[in-house]
Amino acid sequence: MKAFENIIKKIFGARVRALRTEKGWSQADFAFECGLHRTYIGAVERGEHDISLENIKKIADTFRVDIAELF
Amino acid sequence: MKAFENIIKKIFGARVRALRTEKGWSQADFAFECGLHRTYIGAVERGEHDISLENIKKIADTFRVDIAELF
Repeated sequence: MKAFENIIKKIFGARVRALRTEKGWSQADFAFECGLHRTYIGAVERGEHDISLENIKKIADTFRVDIAELF
Repeated sequence: MKAFENIIKKIFGARVRALRTEKGWSQADFAFECGLHRTYIGAVERGEHDISLENIKKIADTFRVDIAELF
């Protein structure tokens, strides 16, 4: 399962990056709006961080979408 | 935002519990299928644990649904 678990982080990160750049937001601006650190958002977008549900919720709220729309 | 973050854990936990009991699975059986510990699943279902994306994926896979269907 390890490979698939890595894939979900990559897929999620790519989705976050796509939505963020679509809105023309920098990582720093987006991170600030989420209440998270820029380096943390960078790691999430690269699929390197196993993000928790509360932080997924912060990202969804910043994009003003439901969590389901991030998957 | 703190209250809303707690709410998302409660909502997610209730959804997991509803799907699990609908299938007639015990927490122990479900946890085993997920590759997680029974006490961990119990805490997730009570909304006490800030579950990570990889473990959300394990739960979705065990239910054979997409992650979006858990939200």
